[in-house]
Amino acid sequence: MTTRRTPTGAAVLQPRITSAITDAVLDELAVCGYGRLSMEAVARRAGVGKSALYRRWPSKQEMVLAVLSEFSVPLAEVPDTGSLRGDLLATVDALRDWFTHSHFSAIFPDLTAEAGRNPALAAAIQAMIGEPRRRQGAAMLRRAIARGELPADLNLEMALDFLPGPLFWRLGVRKVALDPGYREELVEFLLRALGSGSSSGS
Amino acid sequence: MTTRRTPTGAAVLQPRITSAITDAVLDELAVCGYGRLSMEAVARRAGVGKSALYRRWPSKQEMVLAVLSEFSVPLAEVPDTGSLRGDLLATVDALRDWFTHSHFSAIFPDLTAEAGRNPALAAAIQAMIGEPRRRQGAAMLRRAIARGELPADLNLEMALDFLPGPLFWRLGVRKVALDPGYREELVEFLLRALGSGSSSGS
Repeated sequence: MTTRRTPTGAAVLQPRITSAITDAVLDELAVCGYGRLSMEAVARRAGVGKSALYRRWPSKQEMVLAVLSEFSVPLAEVPDTGSLRGDLLATVDALRDWFTHSHFSAIFPDLTAEAGRNPALAAAIQAMIGEPRRRQGAAMLRRAIARGELPADLNLEMALDFLPGPLFWRLGVRKVALDPGYREELVEFLLRALGSGSSSGS
Repeated sequence: MTTRRTPTGAAVLQPRITSAITDAVLDELAVCGYGRLSMEAVARRAGVGKSALYRRWPSKQEMVLAVLSEFSVPLAEVPDTGSLRGDLLATVDALRDWFTHSHFSAIFPDLTAEAGRNPALAAAIQAMIGEPRRRQGAAMLRRAIARGELPADLNLEMALDFLPGPLFWRLGVRKVALDPGYREELVEFLLRALGSGSSSGS
């Protein structure tokens, strides 16, 4: 255990160093996986001392989740396009970019496997990545309810599993690339699943 | 490499030994993961010599996939209940049993991660587990098309990603247990997604 100290002096948490560490964490996670990732290897790859890591995060789990959260949560921010179909297309594109990211496509299944063996890690992943992403998805669906495009009694919990589920099954589990027209077809299935009255949209 | 020989003598491939090896493979996979699984450890756990393994399968990959295929493919056999809603409920129950199986719930994410690093393994998994399971799902959907419960031009590839996708996202990725009423609600979403004309079913 390392004692956490309040940073003193203006140069302590330099953004340039934080950025180098972030890149090193993603590189190491993609190559080694969570289980074999070490603070030493991250520090070496980032070209910093281990103290630079412990000054920012108290443990490997907090370091990894802070980096993955900062990477993953903004990717769930989709613009308000004014229609449910437009918002779903943007959501599908954002999910595709997340699932096929050069590093994250390797990190995601590894972290899912690790979370199956480590309930505390699983809970932290949901708190720092899953739930913030779902709040953004829920806001998108509530906009559609407010516009009258979805039923007011939509089961949001179920709906939020439908947005990533079939796409992840194809890209993450089956490892099958998307055909032309796939995203539009997926959105037609999603519009129907969510109970959109008119699948001709806006 | 071990030379494959045609088994000679009636006692060579005893079902009791095959069954002990199958259990040992599932145990070892759940504990060690695919990457660290060794033929030695499987033989030791099954109480047999390594030759008993190589007499059945030429390599670790073929042994693991034969065992997982024999375990997973029959689980996708759902009875013809006479209605799409009934068939989907049976499918969801079978998928839930597969995803939450004491050993397989650990094996599945680990194998998915390993497949991401090993394209030959990914292709073999699809050929021996994914595709046989999808053929059974496709037969179920074609029965519904023949009964007039689904449109004749249903995109079967997309539909077959919708059956496991949202359920796997909940159980396998988020690790959230199912609420009472979940399976019926999931089936309502699926009926709509697939374009079932009347979601009141049979």
